[in-house]
Amino acid sequence: MNQNKNSSKLFFASDYMEGAHPLILQRLMETNLLHTAGYGTDEFSESARAKVRKACNAPDADVYFLVGGTQTNATVIGSILRPYQGVIAAETGHVSTHEAGAIEAGGHKVITLPHKNGKLDADSIERCIQGYWDDANHEHMVMPGLVYISQPTEFGTLYSLDELTKISETCRKHNVPLYVDGARLAYGLACRQNDVTLPDLARLCDAFYIGGTKCGALFGEAVVLPQHDFIPHFFTLIKQNGALLAKGRIAGIQFETLFSELPMNSSGESGESAASDMPLLYEAIGQNAIDAADRIRAALVEKGYEISFECPTNQLFITVDDTQKERLEALLELSFWEKLPDGRTVLRICTSWATDSSDVDKLIEIL
Amino acid sequence: MNQNKNSSKLFFASDYMEGAHPLILQRLMETNLLHTAGYGTDEFSESARAKVRKACNAPDADVYFLVGGTQTNATVIGSILRPYQGVIAAETGHVSTHEAGAIEAGGHKVITLPHKNGKLDADSIERCIQGYWDDANHEHMVMPGLVYISQPTEFGTLYSLDELTKISETCRKHNVPLYVDGARLAYGLACRQNDVTLPDLARLCDAFYIGGTKCGALFGEAVVLPQHDFIPHFFTLIKQNGALLAKGRIAGIQFETLFSELPMNSSGESGESAASDMPLLYEAIGQNAIDAADRIRAALVEKGYEISFECPTNQLFITVDDTQKERLEALLELSFWEKLPDGRTVLRICTSWATDSSDVDKLIEIL
Amino acid sequence: MNQNKNSSKLFFASDYMEGAHPLILQRLMETNLLHTAGYGTDEFSESARAKVRKACNAPDADVYFLVGGTQTNATVIGSILRPYQGVIAAETGHVSTHEAGAIEAGGHKVITLPHKNGKLDADSIERCIQGYWDDANHEHMVMPGLVYISQPTEFGTLYSLDELTKISETCRKHNVPLYVDGARLAYGLACRQNDVTLPDLARLCDAFYIGGTKCGALFGEAVVLPQHDFIPHFFTLIKQNGALLAKGRIAGIQFETLFSELPMNSSGESGESAASDMPLLYEAIGQNAIDAADRIRAALVEKGYEISFECPTNQLFITVDDTQKERLEALLELSFWEKLPDGRTVLRICTSWATDSSDVDKLIEIL
Amino acid sequence: MNQNKNSSKLFFASDYMEGAHPLILQRLMETNLLHTAGYGTDEFSESARAKVRKACNAPDADVYFLVGGTQTNATVIGSILRPYQGVIAAETGHVSTHEAGAIEAGGHKVITLPHKNGKLDADSIERCIQGYWDDANHEHMVMPGLVYISQPTEFGTLYSLDELTKISETCRKHNVPLYVDGARLAYGLACRQNDVTLPDLARLCDAFYIGGTKCGALFGEAVVLPQHDFIPHFFTLIKQNGALLAKGRIAGIQFETLFSELPMNSSGESGESAASDMPLLYEAIGQNAIDAADRIRAALVEKGYEISFECPTNQLFITVDDTQKERLEALLELSFWEKLPDGRTVLRICTSWATDSSDVDKLIEIL
Repeated sequence: MNQNKNSSKLFFASDYMEGAHPLILQRLMETNLLHTAGYGTDEFSESARAKVRKACNAPDADVYFLVGGTQTNATVIGSILRPYQGVIAAETGHVSTHEAGAIEAGGHKVITLPHKNGKLDADSIERCIQGYWDDANHEHMVMPGLVYISQPTEFGTLYSLDELTKISETCRKHNVPLYVDGARLAYGLACRQNDVTLPDLARLCDAFYIGGTKCGALFGEAVVLPQHDFIPHFFTLIKQNGALLAKGRIAGIQFETLFSELPMNSSGESGESAASDMPLLYEAIGQNAIDAADRIRAALVEKGYEISFECPTNQLFITVDDTQKERLEALLELSFWEKLPDGRTVLRICTSWATDSSDVDKLIEIL
Repeated sequence: MNQNKNSSKLFFASDYMEGAHPLILQRLMETNLLHTAGYGTDEFSESARAKVRKACNAPDADVYFLVGGTQTNATVIGSILRPYQGVIAAETGHVSTHEAGAIEAGGHKVITLPHKNGKLDADSIERCIQGYWDDANHEHMVMPGLVYISQPTEFGTLYSLDELTKISETCRKHNVPLYVDGARLAYGLACRQNDVTLPDLARLCDAFYIGGTKCGALFGEAVVLPQHDFIPHFFTLIKQNGALLAKGRIAGIQFETLFSELPMNSSGESGESAASDMPLLYEAIGQNAIDAADRIRAALVEKGYEISFECPTNQLFITVDDTQKERLEALLELSFWEKLPDGRTVLRICTSWATDSSDVDKLIEIL
Repeated sequence: MNQNKNSSKLFFASDYMEGAHPLILQRLMETNLLHTAGYGTDEFSESARAKVRKACNAPDADVYFLVGGTQTNATVIGSILRPYQGVIAAETGHVSTHEAGAIEAGGHKVITLPHKNGKLDADSIERCIQGYWDDANHEHMVMPGLVYISQPTEFGTLYSLDELTKISETCRKHNVPLYVDGARLAYGLACRQNDVTLPDLARLCDAFYIGGTKCGALFGEAVVLPQHDFIPHFFTLIKQNGALLAKGRIAGIQFETLFSELPMNSSGESGESAASDMPLLYEAIGQNAIDAADRIRAALVEKGYEISFECPTNQLFITVDDTQKERLEALLELSFWEKLPDGRTVLRICTSWATDSSDVDKLIEIL
Repeated sequence: MNQNKNSSKLFFASDYMEGAHPLILQRLMETNLLHTAGYGTDEFSESARAKVRKACNAPDADVYFLVGGTQTNATVIGSILRPYQGVIAAETGHVSTHEAGAIEAGGHKVITLPHKNGKLDADSIERCIQGYWDDANHEHMVMPGLVYISQPTEFGTLYSLDELTKISETCRKHNVPLYVDGARLAYGLACRQNDVTLPDLARLCDAFYIGGTKCGALFGEAVVLPQHDFIPHFFTLIKQNGALLAKGRIAGIQFETLFSELPMNSSGESGESAASDMPLLYEAIGQNAIDAADRIRAALVEKGYEISFECPTNQLFITVDDTQKERLEALLELSFWEKLPDGRTVLRICTSWATDSSDVDKLIEIL
């Protein structure tokens, strides 16, 4: 039944619609019957933390493994903010729109700023924070206590190192921490246009998370706090937020695998990348999605599709009329993005670690 | 390294220290590359829900798969209670003691009552609820809005069908819902002394969860709400609580497997049970732990150990002096329970789905 | 000392800078040593509730007396919304900007919409609510669960009966309650352009409050819930929000006085109004402020001041350059509103129940 | 009507059933039409703060005026605790029982300890805090982050200076702040057995409040934080909790009056005390209640009443049978305290600033 359903259409709707990278499942199998301590105190989690610290060039970082993005955002943001503070975010930020009010349920306002293709800029953050302090009534208002951005953004766009540095400087000038949501970070890191590395994030941010759920894991997000003890008693706060895994090793094993070098004869479909200078599985996963997206993007341009807005990562947005839409949706599983005022539709094509090269061939043929 | 560490001592410390039952991992492997919709709308989750409804004889039940126990308790309790209400629980209840204040973080008081070996009784619940309404100042007080019990309890004890029926009647008389935490439900259901079935729970409770994390899954708890739409917009509340899995199928596949009949030639170590009248993997998992516990209990009695209190499920509590303690801890991984005023120690021996029969032999030899 | 400070400048900065209308203080004196029951169950509060119900033509209304505006908004909004819901408000609404995040601290998002001079319109509310339900991802979003508007608005503007009716119809079509913040309601009711009466509010809204703090009381806001038991257990919710007065009569006596007919030989400065068809003190208080504002407005126009935007109630906004600003601020206590991009300043002149006619004469001379 | 109702029975039911001390009303009248700044920045509030600091011998203290007790407790406790912490209180503490779950609504657990006549002792606090840190699972539990006691307690009992010092030492040893609820502090300070002064409280506690509502004011509680900036941004937190008075002066004037020396020819009934060495109105108010309570207590003993438990302040508890109860309740307004298992009833007789000496005579006659 499942096979039938799945074979009928080419699948480019999203990046969290399969299980996990085969190397992860393999490692879960190998370790399955070992006994370990609970709650992330096991040796797999410890090893994963060490690998993440190394990849981030952040030897003092605290690293925690949580389950999903909304949970991670709510836990981190709620733990950093004091009760009189709110979090600055783009009006299109995931915390502003698609987390069912989780930040507010934790007691905090999301202070929204206008965006450009999903991005904030240092100037508007500066105006927001300085504007608060300049306002004669600011003691009656919510104090900006954290800045939230996503890399890549919800639009698949990327902050350049220069942009991120300016935002970081603005935050540090005002003593407001900076937090980066990296739900799709693998696809940002692998992108040709990207110049922001994990060590840059560790250097410029006060907290960020490396996404697993959308980047090849069954689930899991790795929170990195570059300064040790930046959030006191964070373990208890994770527990209180219902984000603590009893079998913490299940997340630990996944991130240990994601941040391990690829074996030469990997059984994963990204195996060939392992021979190059991209040693970690997490990088190979990003590369597979970006390679596929690049091929599709070139085909879209060649075939005269209207690109809705530039997106250099694993998401592609095209503006189509009803005829095009009908034809594509008959053959492909894509993602509806929005209806435009002129009646046309923006569709999203999404690649991932699981995107098969031959499926890309077929997609290009169809386009 | 792990092998060494793990082989040095017999492991009876807890029931969430391994991965998952092999049949679950096998099923995750088989389905890994299929594409499915997210957030629990996939066909595996739908099939799992159908199997759970059938096992509970609750055709109208809403079934949701969450990740862990604290999260499930906080989400369910916070969703049922109105702001002026609190939840009644035993002072030893998991929500009262070991959830880092998650219920209170959600805005609600845990109204604690004295316990007997972890259990509440209908009379004390009656007195608490009636006492609230009889109090001239009750409008200045927290209204009891839900009763929380665990089956088995945190002490491994069980409510009999008669006790549960009386509690249910008390709740219904006062229009206060009843919620049962089944973190270790498999071990209760398989217990010889148990006379409370899944259909009984569905009939007598307004909400309960069937534990996966401690009963053979990588993670996961199945919330059962026997009356359809008992919690309006529960999906959004799950999302807001950070408890919604993007890859909902990972939980769905696990519960589909747990609630499937065991194959004849199962590769799992409880395979032989499949031939009997215990058709579901969830039942076989419970049986394995109970069989092991029963053998160990008999040995403890025979060898003159002091049983701390009667516990018919997969947890055994013994009171030992320092000499005994030292000897046992040198050879076994057990769980410290508490230090008694007389200087002796209560230790917990815990079996699980993963407990190997030959390890039980070795343990009995050591005792 | 105080006299000196207060005599030096004419005071038109705000409407909550004096004590209470003299008739209120007189009534507090007369009743001071009587013994009454606490928490608003006294006979003064009961009488005040009856008078408010009568003035609103809402015989079944529940009426509660709270202390201040932010507290009232947080208590009412938090009591109406379910955890998955937020409140729609203008981006300039008091709950959106100047309540220090009280709504979010209670767990709920303020869903902000653009405003016109402080007002929302039915169309944008319709688009917001319908847009939520039309969004394929709405189960991941905050559901609009209440509409908040102010009458008069934070800009001193008024909803017409037609506008309010349309908003009410939109709300009822979608089964979303409507709540009106009447912090300055006396000044709206007394306004010549106003055509929204208390019975209209009771008919068209699900909850509103009649402001006392800014309209002649020492403190106090009267919450009116036209449908009995619209908010179950609201008494307990008021207590939980710290909004329950032990000496409830102090609020009750004030509202009983505000909603009593003016005595013929009133010692209050609005006494003469009592002979006309405006029998209640609350109406006389509004009239005094509006009469003063009308005289000042006419003088401003005559003297060529730039009116920043039309405001028919007790607040007047003028745009001045630095020379004008300096001159006015040397002689008057006014209120800074905002700095314009062109360097000029918007100042607010505010009248109240306490504005003395001879002070208006002096102000007009200065202008 | 009110007169009739009030004259029919002698009133000893409670201490918040009249208006305010006449000197307070007089001062509100005198200052009524002066213009002042809002939100507690006026000169009356500033003067009141100076007087409170002086009385407490705490020159650096931050002093804030809030409205009522539950609000004050919720605001102070919620502002001091971090999200992972709870507040230790007696199981009979006001925050534990009669605040409708306000502390939990703010996200925090009340960690209850057994009491002796309403009091905690240093040893049980020590065991609770040390027990938390000693527990192997403490990271899964709520951390004690504050100790709450009341002086006098809800039972009218008092901590001695020795007891309070020991509690303070325990708190400081563990770096856990100590907060004292002084809702009835005037009646404690005036008590003959009392040896705890305002400067002692300022020296031994980290936060406390001086009750106004039950001690002669219309409403109002003065929060004293002996160390400046102990709670950063407390003004905004007060606003967020709905506890900020727009007309802050109304509270300021009341506390300025309460902490002023009594005039020689006071119109208040406690006027004669002014000639003695008790210069402040707040002290005279306490003295009046204590003098009345002492006379009644002596009469109760003389007439053979059973004193339920020793209470040295303005509350007296007697255990009566049904015959006595009926007789007393026919002639007096008393307060029901509790029904005993043996069928008898505990009644409370309460005196206050407003208790008239001739009413005490009449009561004694009746007893």
